Amino acid sequence: MALTRPNPRFIARANRIMSSQIRHYAAPGEGTIPSAKKKYVPTSGAYPLGFTVGSAHVGVKASNTRFDDLALIASDSPCAGAAVFTTNKFQAAPVTVSRDMLKKRKGDGVRAIIVNSGCANAVTGRGGIEDAISMGKKTDQCFYEDSNGGDDGQGKEYHIAGMTKGAGMIHPNMATLLGIICTDAPVAAGPLQAALTSAITKSFNSISIDGDTSTNDTVALLANGAAGGKTITSTTSEDFLEFQKTLTEFAIDLAKLVVRDGEGATKFVTIRVTNAATYKDAHRVASTIARSPLVKTALYGKDANWGRILCATGYAEGVDSVTPEETSVSFVPTDGSEELKLLVRGEPEQVDEARAAKILEAEDLEIKVQLSENKGYKEEAVFWTCDFSHEYVTINGDYRT
Amino acid sequence: MALTRPNPRFIARANRIMSSQIRHYAAPGEGTIPSAKKKYVPTSGAYPLGFTVGSAHVGVKASNTRFDDLALIASDSPCAGAAVFTTNKFQAAPVTVSRDMLKKRKGDGVRAIIVNSGCANAVTGRGGIEDAISMGKKTDQCFYEDSNGGDDGQGKEYHIAGMTKGAGMIHPNMATLLGIICTDAPVAAGPLQAALTSAITKSFNSISIDGDTSTNDTVALLANGAAGGKTITSTTSEDFLEFQKTLTEFAIDLAKLVVRDGEGATKFVTIRVTNAATYKDAHRVASTIARSPLVKTALYGKDANWGRILCATGYAEGVDSVTPEETSVSFVPTDGSEELKLLVRGEPEQVDEARAAKILEAEDLEIKVQLSENKGYKEEAVFWTCDFSHEYVTINGDYRT
Repeated sequence: MALTRPNPRFIARANRIMSSQIRHYAAPGEGTIPSAKKKYVPTSGAYPLGFTVGSAHVGVKASNTRFDDLALIASDSPCAGAAVFTTNKFQAAPVTVSRDMLKKRKGDGVRAIIVNSGCANAVTGRGGIEDAISMGKKTDQCFYEDSNGGDDGQGKEYHIAGMTKGAGMIHPNMATLLGIICTDAPVAAGPLQAALTSAITKSFNSISIDGDTSTNDTVALLANGAAGGKTITSTTSEDFLEFQKTLTEFAIDLAKLVVRDGEGATKFVTIRVTNAATYKDAHRVASTIARSPLVKTALYGKDANWGRILCATGYAEGVDSVTPEETSVSFVPTDGSEELKLLVRGEPEQVDEARAAKILEAEDLEIKVQLSENKGYKEEAVFWTCDFSHEYVTINGDYRT
Repeated sequence: MALTRPNPRFIARANRIMSSQIRHYAAPGEGTIPSAKKKYVPTSGAYPLGFTVGSAHVGVKASNTRFDDLALIASDSPCAGAAVFTTNKFQAAPVTVSRDMLKKRKGDGVRAIIVNSGCANAVTGRGGIEDAISMGKKTDQCFYEDSNGGDDGQGKEYHIAGMTKGAGMIHPNMATLLGIICTDAPVAAGPLQAALTSAITKSFNSISIDGDTSTNDTVALLANGAAGGKTITSTTSEDFLEFQKTLTEFAIDLAKLVVRDGEGATKFVTIRVTNAATYKDAHRVASTIARSPLVKTALYGKDANWGRILCATGYAEGVDSVTPEETSVSFVPTDGSEELKLLVRGEPEQVDEARAAKILEAEDLEIKVQLSENKGYKEEAVFWTCDFSHEYVTINGDYRT
């Protein structure tokens, strides 16, 4: 993805539009990647062909005088677009406008995604909607003519790239989260939306920071076909299944980075719930454990408190797969060593406290909960979350609207 | 309620029984009432007739060498009993045993409630069940013969008294919570259970500390009829309706005290959700706001963050009563002064920040959310919660299993 500055006239316009929005949620970040997180930045691979990305400081929020707060992701040619939006009933204006736009165009002829930080444009009434529409129109005006960059063709090698932001207000359906994914694979709008919806369930809808589902969550996917090849038009073709699998894995990687960025997070915790009757049951139990303040403070305190994990398992709503006397809980260390059993078929194990302490010292940890081992249930869900720290309370208690 | 020591032989037995239980959740408290909370201790009123209460230190937990950890609440005569238990699928042994006992006796012929602290007897397998049964049997043996204390008669004045404990792992259905209520009114087992079930919905199932629902929650109610009068046998009689109303109000008072005792709590927050199509919808929205970590940290930080309140309103699951453009949010001060409107029919108000800051300085605060003002919806639910503080993280992060 070539990094270029967008048309300066566009920036000036966007600046005027966005300065008129008054609701500010997020504070500008430091703009730097903490050294402990640099290892998660990819150092190899190739960007999808035919996309241009740029960012600029336009001053959305007066207090931010330094950091870029506007990004443009553009395709050299009109492309197919798909998106998944928050289920929150108070949907921010950009969500409403983007959804309508995609619907009107039936996911075709998309040129760009324009995104700002420093203002959520949520609960801004009619004016907010007008601002969002205006932002879209001004962005459209940046494209004087259609280029033909997308038709060079490259054969069988396709690329996928993306960006995401999160931090707080993160729980399935979706998070205060923006995810933008681009690919140069040729995929028609229908299959593109199907692939994204399916990928989101196992990625962005399988993470939790604090259990709060925001008004703005959006993950968008553009496919411009710039790498050439035959367009995927069916959701049953082999090419589609391959694309879907790659997209899901990629979306999981992005979603996990959101958790690592969680406000005040000191731990990255994988929750694997197995032996459920349905995926939905497994997902609900994992989600309930992931948002339990007692589980999350125990993880922060490095305490092997399986009682709290079990407690959350037991109060997950609308779940039929829990059989108390067949439930097992264990910690799976990420260093490849053997799992540490805490509860086996409803009976507490004698826990090696020294080993538990060692496992809990690590930044990464997996909690495995088997629900009904002997019933022949096979469904499994994986969820990612972080701990609840003093820092989380500080960030969200000190925050000023 | 006369405070007497129970039979010393009983205590020795109970001590032996409970020392064999190995799971320890709760730590012994300080045993004193903080000065700021003394105002909530009633200083007038009369206890129900015909009940005896005692407590003793029996050493359930080795680290507790000082504080009473066993309580007995006994009726002078066999009485009607009712109880509501946790919906958590991992039910602790005392829950299972108490439920079975009540069922077997059809709520009649109950003599006492025996309760310990320092050990939840949860996830203790067959041995835990045996311990709980044994504890019940030994308690039964304390009653050498039936007295006739219940038939003296007093006419129309009845009394109600109760005790409760909570602190963390508190969310509807129910909390790590024990509530015991006694009355000398004459109520048969059937109507007694009906009155309790109904009272719990609007009291103990309308509070949240941290959103975690424990394995042990129990509220029990004994009615021994010691004050005389005609026994209430029907759930449609005027006497029943009067009893139910009094019981509900009393249970609300007790439940609110649990919230005031919330781990690390600095605020006591009433959440009133109005103009819903159903009570269930109003209750779900209130419950969702009450457990939002972002709302709770904002309250701790004394920030008038209506955006977070609205966000939680919008992601409440399974609710049909939310109409974004008809939703209003305000703070209702507890000093009787006018409410502070934050959002009116979907449009943000210009908030008087100085007044908001003053309201948020107070320990008590009411958040009012009107869902669909113009649809003619009339249902309302009230919920009580506290804030999320550094102290909560400290208490639950430092806790050791």
